[in-house]
Amino acid sequence: MSEMKFPEWMADVQRRVEHALESRLPAGNIAPERLHQAMRYATLGGGKRVRPLLAFAAGELSGAPAARLEVIACALECIHVYSLVHDDMPCMDDDVLRRGKPTVHVQYDEATALLVGDALQTQAFDLLSAPQLFEDTAAQVKSIALLARASGSRGMAGGQAIDLASVGQSLSREELEFMHIHKTGALIRAAVMMGATAGNTDEATLAKLDHFGKCIGLLFQVVDDILDEVADTATLGKTAGKDAANDKPTYVSILGLSKARELAKELAAEAHATLTALNTSTRRLAEITDYIVSRHF
Amino acid sequence: MSEMKFPEWMADVQRRVEHALESRLPAGNIAPERLHQAMRYATLGGGKRVRPLLAFAAGELSGAPAARLEVIACALECIHVYSLVHDDMPCMDDDVLRRGKPTVHVQYDEATALLVGDALQTQAFDLLSAPQLFEDTAAQVKSIALLARASGSRGMAGGQAIDLASVGQSLSREELEFMHIHKTGALIRAAVMMGATAGNTDEATLAKLDHFGKCIGLLFQVVDDILDEVADTATLGKTAGKDAANDKPTYVSILGLSKARELAKELAAEAHATLTALNTSTRRLAEITDYIVSRHF
Repeated sequence: MSEMKFPEWMADVQRRVEHALESRLPAGNIAPERLHQAMRYATLGGGKRVRPLLAFAAGELSGAPAARLEVIACALECIHVYSLVHDDMPCMDDDVLRRGKPTVHVQYDEATALLVGDALQTQAFDLLSAPQLFEDTAAQVKSIALLARASGSRGMAGGQAIDLASVGQSLSREELEFMHIHKTGALIRAAVMMGATAGNTDEATLAKLDHFGKCIGLLFQVVDDILDEVADTATLGKTAGKDAANDKPTYVSILGLSKARELAKELAAEAHATLTALNTSTRRLAEITDYIVSRHF
Repeated sequence: MSEMKFPEWMADVQRRVEHALESRLPAGNIAPERLHQAMRYATLGGGKRVRPLLAFAAGELSGAPAARLEVIACALECIHVYSLVHDDMPCMDDDVLRRGKPTVHVQYDEATALLVGDALQTQAFDLLSAPQLFEDTAAQVKSIALLARASGSRGMAGGQAIDLASVGQSLSREELEFMHIHKTGALIRAAVMMGATAGNTDEATLAKLDHFGKCIGLLFQVVDDILDEVADTATLGKTAGKDAANDKPTYVSILGLSKARELAKELAAEAHATLTALNTSTRRLAEITDYIVSRHF
């Protein structure tokens, strides 16, 4: 793995995760068939798998076994996809396109989209609580706790609630940052931390990785806001310009495009500096940082 | 505890669970405030707390510490309430009344109801993965796995999907049973099993308790179907007669009222026989069985 160039490594992890999700999500011919088919429709065959990439990158650093990282990656992706499915529903962002395909409530129906999100969230905890996944069950409990805390009302779901409340409001940069640290940042940070705790990582390294995770969580969102402003729908695979259309505050609307780009560069620099301070190989984490930035530069 | 008459014991457990939920759900003044207030609105001050009662009853048998049972009870109730909040939404059953109060999407709005359900589900796994909750972290992982399996697409959420697909369909008794074993039965069964695994219970006893849980899960649903037919809205605290109005198959619509009552008696008898076969005190589990039956006889 360590010999591979980054694009090869990324493609390799993405393939592994796709395969792991294929085999670990309930099959489409198990009852209730339609629900299971819709769960697979939502999850398989798309996405950059950023959270799995981060878990694998941190996992290489911690020496975690690949089989365990695959399950952690699947759990992270189940949570991420559940949030997308619910976020796209008519009572939330009401979006029709996701990863270049009709959203779940369009392809199926609203009730199915609701249940798909619900069941994917549960699936994440089901996967993570599998017997023998960890030799050290205390570390397994910690991994579950990291995911739960990052996803709930004080993490991702809470960020969604703040996002909803902010429509049509003018936010300060601090308020916007608070929202994003929850909405997108918490799960990205958890991905790094779950990869690290899946193997052996000392407390000092964990603390630095946590800071790194915080930086790239924000970086990811700033880049996303820039892309939403400058890219077209075909490139994004989701509806472009929807934040502006929905009157949602973004880094671009608050800072302007050029200052948002500067902020992205600063965050990337801080992420790199945090990695450099670690006395261990952090090559893949550094490469992912560059990859996130390269999405728009 | 063992000296108390059943109504006292039940009231005591209900008070403990209410208090534990009060203190363990995020406070209404923590950001995002509105989401946390709505989570508390949905969860506190109502409900018979049947699943917590079962966990405590099985926990007395296993010798589990009360503090651990409280957390397990809260987790079960968070999952149960999340399912009610989502089930009441316009794209599902579209109901306006629950536990005698306006449903969450009526009192707040649809997006908030969606997020309340999402965040309550996560809260359950957050609570169960708390450090030091179990001395034996392998048992803790098992408890999390029991809850996840019971709640997901092969449990409660799957039962909801089958329920939705059955509207306007004629089901056989076997198909109806399959639906209820998932929709209501799985979580009730998990409540018994989680109480039992929170302490010391041998495998043979666990197997019998699992069968007991299956019986009372079905019993609970048969009684619910009977109540939906014969009780009024004020007594139920939720809209009465809604299954018939929604053209949903029930035990009453398939078997008729008198045969549904007979079935309830048979299931209660089998539950009692299963308990009697255990060489240990199962008084509270027996009393809960009688209590479920007494809701309509």
